[in-house]
Amino acid sequence: MQTFLTSAAITQWAEAHRAAGRTVGLVPTMGFLHAGHVSLMTRLRAEVDALAVSIFVNPLQFAPGEDLAVYPRDPEGDAAKCAAAGVDALFVPEDFYPEDFSTSVGVSGLTAGLCGASRPTHFGGVTTVVARLFGVTRCDVACFGEKDFQQLMVIRRMVRDLALPVRIVPGPLVRDADGVALSSRNKYLSAAERERARSLHQALFAIRDAVSSGERSVARLLELGRGHIDCDRLDYLELVDSETLRPAERVDRPARALGAAFYGKTRLIDNVGVGPELSWT
Amino acid sequence: MQTFLTSAAITQWAEAHRAAGRTVGLVPTMGFLHAGHVSLMTRLRAEVDALAVSIFVNPLQFAPGEDLAVYPRDPEGDAAKCAAAGVDALFVPEDFYPEDFSTSVGVSGLTAGLCGASRPTHFGGVTTVVARLFGVTRCDVACFGEKDFQQLMVIRRMVRDLALPVRIVPGPLVRDADGVALSSRNKYLSAAERERARSLHQALFAIRDAVSSGERSVARLLELGRGHIDCDRLDYLELVDSETLRPAERVDRPARALGAAFYGKTRLIDNVGVGPELSWT
Repeated sequence: MQTFLTSAAITQWAEAHRAAGRTVGLVPTMGFLHAGHVSLMTRLRAEVDALAVSIFVNPLQFAPGEDLAVYPRDPEGDAAKCAAAGVDALFVPEDFYPEDFSTSVGVSGLTAGLCGASRPTHFGGVTTVVARLFGVTRCDVACFGEKDFQQLMVIRRMVRDLALPVRIVPGPLVRDADGVALSSRNKYLSAAERERARSLHQALFAIRDAVSSGERSVARLLELGRGHIDCDRLDYLELVDSETLRPAERVDRPARALGAAFYGKTRLIDNVGVGPELSWT
Repeated sequence: MQTFLTSAAITQWAEAHRAAGRTVGLVPTMGFLHAGHVSLMTRLRAEVDALAVSIFVNPLQFAPGEDLAVYPRDPEGDAAKCAAAGVDALFVPEDFYPEDFSTSVGVSGLTAGLCGASRPTHFGGVTTVVARLFGVTRCDVACFGEKDFQQLMVIRRMVRDLALPVRIVPGPLVRDADGVALSSRNKYLSAAERERARSLHQALFAIRDAVSSGERSVARLLELGRGHIDCDRLDYLELVDSETLRPAERVDRPARALGAAFYGKTRLIDNVGVGPELSWT
C-alpha cells in the first residue's frame, strides 16, 4: 500500500492506472475506521483494479460548535486496517483544498429535511468535498455506506446531475453486537449512554416490523417508533420515500425510517429500509 | 459531422473516442455562431482528435427580465459553420437537465464584481451548465473566449478547485472591422447604436495605450476611459488584476480593463489586456 499526502500525487497514481486500462475505486472516509468502512473497502476491492481510500476530516461539513476539533483520529490503526483490506492507495491529504479555494457544489431538495434541517451547511460541505475527491482520485467507482442514507442519495443525485463519470455503489449499514450502528462517534458515548443508544435502532426496527405485520398508517408508525426512543434529545424520527426523501404518505413503495438522537452531547443517526426494497440503478 | 440531441448520446460518442485513446475537445456555445466562436473551434481542432460543439441557450444563466426568450437563434447557419470548421459532433440538447435537476456549482470571490455585481445569478448558472457539459461530453480540453474574460477565469477556478480532468484553453477575442467585439447580441443593435458601441472598445484601448505610454494612476486611467464612452447606461468600467479580478492598485502586473455598457436595451461587454501579459498555466 502506498500513502499519498497531496492531491497531485494521488492524481498521478490514478492516471497511471487509468492509462494502463485499470479501473480505480474510492472509499471516501473521515478516518477512525471501523468494520463499516472496511466492508465498503471489501466490497470495492472485488470490483476494481486499483483501490484508494481517502481519510480527510473535512472542515466544510462541520458547523461552528460541532465536533470538528475533537473528531476521533487513529492514523496508525487506520493504515493497518486499509492495508489488511487490500487497499492500494491511502490518501491522507495535508492541504486538501488549494489556496483561495472558492468553488462549492450543492444539492437542493434532497438536503432540505432530515439531517439537512438541523445541519443546514452540512451537505454543501459533503458534496463539495466529494466532488473534489472524485476529481483528484479520477475514480471510476465510489462506495458510500447506507448508514448515511441521506448523504448516499444526495451524492447519487449530484453524480447524475453533473454527469460525473463515477458509479456510486451503496454499502450496507453494519451494526455492533448490541445492534447499534457502527459510527466513529460511538467512541464519545459513556457506558450508560451506549445502553440507551440501543433504543434508536429498536425504534426503527419496530417501525419496519409493524409495516411487515400490515400497519399502513404513517402517523401510527411514527408514534410507535417514538415510544421506543430513550434519548436526551430527539432530532428527528421520520418515515420517508426512499427516492425523494419526502415524508412517506404510504408504505407500498420503498420507504426508509430514519432517526437522529442525542445521547449526552453525542448525536447518532441510524436508518432502516421499510416496505419494498429500493432498486439501485 | 454527427448531431446529438441527448446527453446520453453525446456521452456514448465521447466514451467511444476515449476508449480508443482519442482526445475529446469541447467548445460550449449558446449558438448564433460568429467568427469568434469559429476561432475557438479552429484552435481546438488542431489540438484534439474528436471535436464537439454544444449549442444550448442555458436558462440558468439568465435572470428574469433578461433576453432569454429573444436570444437569437440560427440552427441551420450554426450547423453549417460547425461543419465547415471540421467539428465532429454537434450537441444540441432538447432536454439538457434531467428531471428534478437539483445540483448547483458556484464560485465565490471571482464572481462578486464586474458582471457578477449586476447579474448576481449569472455565473452560478454558467458554472452549473459548464460542469454538466464537461461531464456529459467527457471532454479532455475545452475552449472559452477571452471576450467573456470573467467567465473564463471563473471556469478556470472551478476546474482547479474540483480537480476536473479538463484543460481550459483561452481563445482571443475577435473584433469586427469597426473594432466592436463580436457578440451574438450585436444583432440587437440599431445602426445608430452600433456606431456608438465603438466607444466601448475605444475607451478600453485608450486605457491600454495610456499604460503603454507610462500612465500609472488607476484613477486617472479610469477617468480617461469614462471620457471616451458614449452609451445609454454604463454598467461598469474597471481595471482589475487579471488573476484576482479585484480592482487593480498598480499596473506593473497583468491587469485587465473591462467594460459593460447599454446601447438601447442591449448590454455589451468588452475587455482588453493591460500591462504585462497574463501567463496561462
